[in-house]
Amino acid sequence: MHLLAIGGSDAGIAAALRARELDDAHEITVMLADEFPNFSVCGLPYLVSGEVADWRDLAHRRREEIEALGIRVVTGATARAIDVAGHRVRATGPEGSEWATPYDRLVIATGATPVRPTIAGLERLGAADGVHALHTMDDAFAVLATLSERRPERAVVIGAGYIGLEMAEALTHRGLAVSLVEALPQVLSSLDPALAAVVAATLVAHGVEVRTATTVREVARVGDELVVRTTSADGDNVEIRAGLVLVVTGVTPDVGLARAAGATLGARGAIQVDRRMATGLPDIYAAGDCVITHHALLGETYLPLGTTAHKQGRIAGENALGGDRHFAGSLGTQVVRVFETVAARTGIRDHEARDAGLNPRTAVVSVDDHKAYYPGATRIAVRLTGDDTNGRLLGVQLVGTVASAVHKRVDTVAAALFSGLGVDELGDLDLAYTPPLGSPWDALQVAAQRWRAEAPTRVDR
Amino acid sequence: MHLLAIGGSDAGIAAALRARELDDAHEITVMLADEFPNFSVCGLPYLVSGEVADWRDLAHRRREEIEALGIRVVTGATARAIDVAGHRVRATGPEGSEWATPYDRLVIATGATPVRPTIAGLERLGAADGVHALHTMDDAFAVLATLSERRPERAVVIGAGYIGLEMAEALTHRGLAVSLVEALPQVLSSLDPALAAVVAATLVAHGVEVRTATTVREVARVGDELVVRTTSADGDNVEIRAGLVLVVTGVTPDVGLARAAGATLGARGAIQVDRRMATGLPDIYAAGDCVITHHALLGETYLPLGTTAHKQGRIAGENALGGDRHFAGSLGTQVVRVFETVAARTGIRDHEARDAGLNPRTAVVSVDDHKAYYPGATRIAVRLTGDDTNGRLLGVQLVGTVASAVHKRVDTVAAALFSGLGVDELGDLDLAYTPPLGSPWDALQVAAQRWRAEAPTRVDR
Repeated sequence: MHLLAIGGSDAGIAAALRARELDDAHEITVMLADEFPNFSVCGLPYLVSGEVADWRDLAHRRREEIEALGIRVVTGATARAIDVAGHRVRATGPEGSEWATPYDRLVIATGATPVRPTIAGLERLGAADGVHALHTMDDAFAVLATLSERRPERAVVIGAGYIGLEMAEALTHRGLAVSLVEALPQVLSSLDPALAAVVAATLVAHGVEVRTATTVREVARVGDELVVRTTSADGDNVEIRAGLVLVVTGVTPDVGLARAAGATLGARGAIQVDRRMATGLPDIYAAGDCVITHHALLGETYLPLGTTAHKQGRIAGENALGGDRHFAGSLGTQVVRVFETVAARTGIRDHEARDAGLNPRTAVVSVDDHKAYYPGATRIAVRLTGDDTNGRLLGVQLVGTVASAVHKRVDTVAAALFSGLGVDELGDLDLAYTPPLGSPWDALQVAAQRWRAEAPTRVDR
Repeated sequence: MHLLAIGGSDAGIAAALRARELDDAHEITVMLADEFPNFSVCGLPYLVSGEVADWRDLAHRRREEIEALGIRVVTGATARAIDVAGHRVRATGPEGSEWATPYDRLVIATGATPVRPTIAGLERLGAADGVHALHTMDDAFAVLATLSERRPERAVVIGAGYIGLEMAEALTHRGLAVSLVEALPQVLSSLDPALAAVVAATLVAHGVEVRTATTVREVARVGDELVVRTTSADGDNVEIRAGLVLVVTGVTPDVGLARAAGATLGARGAIQVDRRMATGLPDIYAAGDCVITHHALLGETYLPLGTTAHKQGRIAGENALGGDRHFAGSLGTQVVRVFETVAARTGIRDHEARDAGLNPRTAVVSVDDHKAYYPGATRIAVRLTGDDTNGRLLGVQLVGTVASAVHKRVDTVAAALFSGLGVDELGDLDLAYTPPLGSPWDALQVAAQRWRAEAPTRVDR
């Protein structure tokens, strides 16, 4: 039996590792287009910042470790077509070689590709001009090359999502002046505006020029420089001159191969899979950023995240070997660290809940991370959302310092959401307390009590 | 309607606050023996250490804040007897005054008192000699007086539980040499020995002399000094001379008042209450360190913790007003910080599970708190316990640095235990990840996968 995974990032590798864990005998191959199997794409900003000195350290596992498990790793191999009936994948190598690899079970883990927004000039500018994406190791190497060769003093980051924020920090850390340009009225649109404003304030405090509600009309090369021409919502036209422009405006699932093979596409054009990660095509599974996401509260959506890719890949690998694991569902749990500020969320926000036909309400509190009498307490901004119809917990958003542990406090709510707990039950949880690190009622429980106290119809359970 | 709470610490105050929150009209009184309503007993070590400069800061709320809510606070009032049929409490004041306070609903929140171990000499030595307990504000003031007046160079802490460890740190922080003496073979007997050893190593690294498996035979006063005479399990007799001796060997529920009123006693002699915190005596509720603890996994036990007292008090206050809230149950979630090391646990350990007739097995892993490529990663020691009969999660113990957020990682397991999740479901949780603060599989999930992989009978779900 031969299990073939197309894609050497989180999902493809997780599938291969799980299959090997369950079975020593089967043949397992991971085929990937570049030379970087099992690298942490989420770590790229820290390579660019210089905090990770050696790019090899970004590997979750070294290639030799994977191969030592008896997993064949074929790099530089671009899958071109899947012969579904013939159970083979046609691939090409870097020097034009072409071959077909037979499989018994296939896991498509082709990931996503960066969205190239429709901005004049982008169609003819690239890494050689100092215009970059940041999605692959090669992208990161190209950014590093621009930094070392062109020694830019200013960078423009287009897009204020997770990667945009991390890269604004990374480039600031490298000593560049950074302008962050975002078409939406706020940074980090995955958070409510009031919390996103805290993150924006952190960026500004560290010298980042934040221009929200600002669209980029054009990126032009003028001599050795790049000129980013922007228009604000107020109609102001501003030109920013920079030596480096980073375009990080989101990703789109890479489904060309799957579509050509006859796979059904779902939300946002991602590959339709069931909870077993099966595509419906015989013996073909798919996982990671190329597939739709089963969301525990929203149903089918598209929410590409590394954590989800690992889980889906593991399930695909198990089921490809005849298992019957089901993906338990995403809650969209996310966290980003921007300088000393951490923003985290899990579950859904008011507008998402309303769109899903629910009856949400959000309580807003600001609570010390630990007892104020012990030195070093900082405030955690909490927005806790529940459903007024049935008291069910829907989600939480947290912003605090690194020391406030919001990055793990959010996990408590993720666990509560997984089990469908009510807001009141969050208050019932037996959470840990010691004065230097917490309070008898955790910040989440203070929020839960506030939510209940503010209920339009008083329900005294 | 008059609600009277006896006891001004966590449970009594929580009951009063909840009653006031639910109802503006009723009369509410909190009666307490000392002058310190709503003070954080858990904060006493940080007052002694000097990290909390002003003792007034240890109040969760100032007295005026409580009174501003229309709650009467009667300090210096020791409840002497409850006239159950007559619905009144007889009390005495500091100067011998005596009176009776009528009530319609009563909440007994008399807390616990320190165990005075049977050590020769303790019966005649007290604070004036430099021999102290640490359970009340007055205890802390007495310790501070000994420190400033006698200027001891060495302290002996008898008992290596939570408070013993915190006080060993606090006194080290004050510049004293500290000997920590514990009769059991390990510090922090609430943790498995291997993890407790990590905590002990931290103490030793900070200069604390740790003497486990050592009993104290006698404490004697010799001139201005104290002599602590110990015997180790090996039969070695060692004398330790010190200027301060702290006896912190646990607490026992303070139930004299309730027992005399006819209340039933349960586990460890604590007041028997149902999940509504009702004592069975008409109109009398009880909460906090004086009552039995409903444990979600073990049933009735005695596990006095501040977090539990707050929850029980809140429920007692609500139900005293006619509500019907049920205490959801404790999981014994605890955390202690000892210098830079944090130890946390929730749920039950192997021996507790076996005693409860379960079929436990524990997986042991050591996992980076965040991706090792990002600077500053430290190891979290995880011991995850599940039940081999049904795959159910039973508990976790974690030891790590402050930065590793084990104090909130433990809460994720507390939430999972609350809902009765299986070990495998812990692996399914959608937990937060960003490289500087986590990993795609959280340390808890790595432990869950290890637990499954080590299962004696392979169940491939």
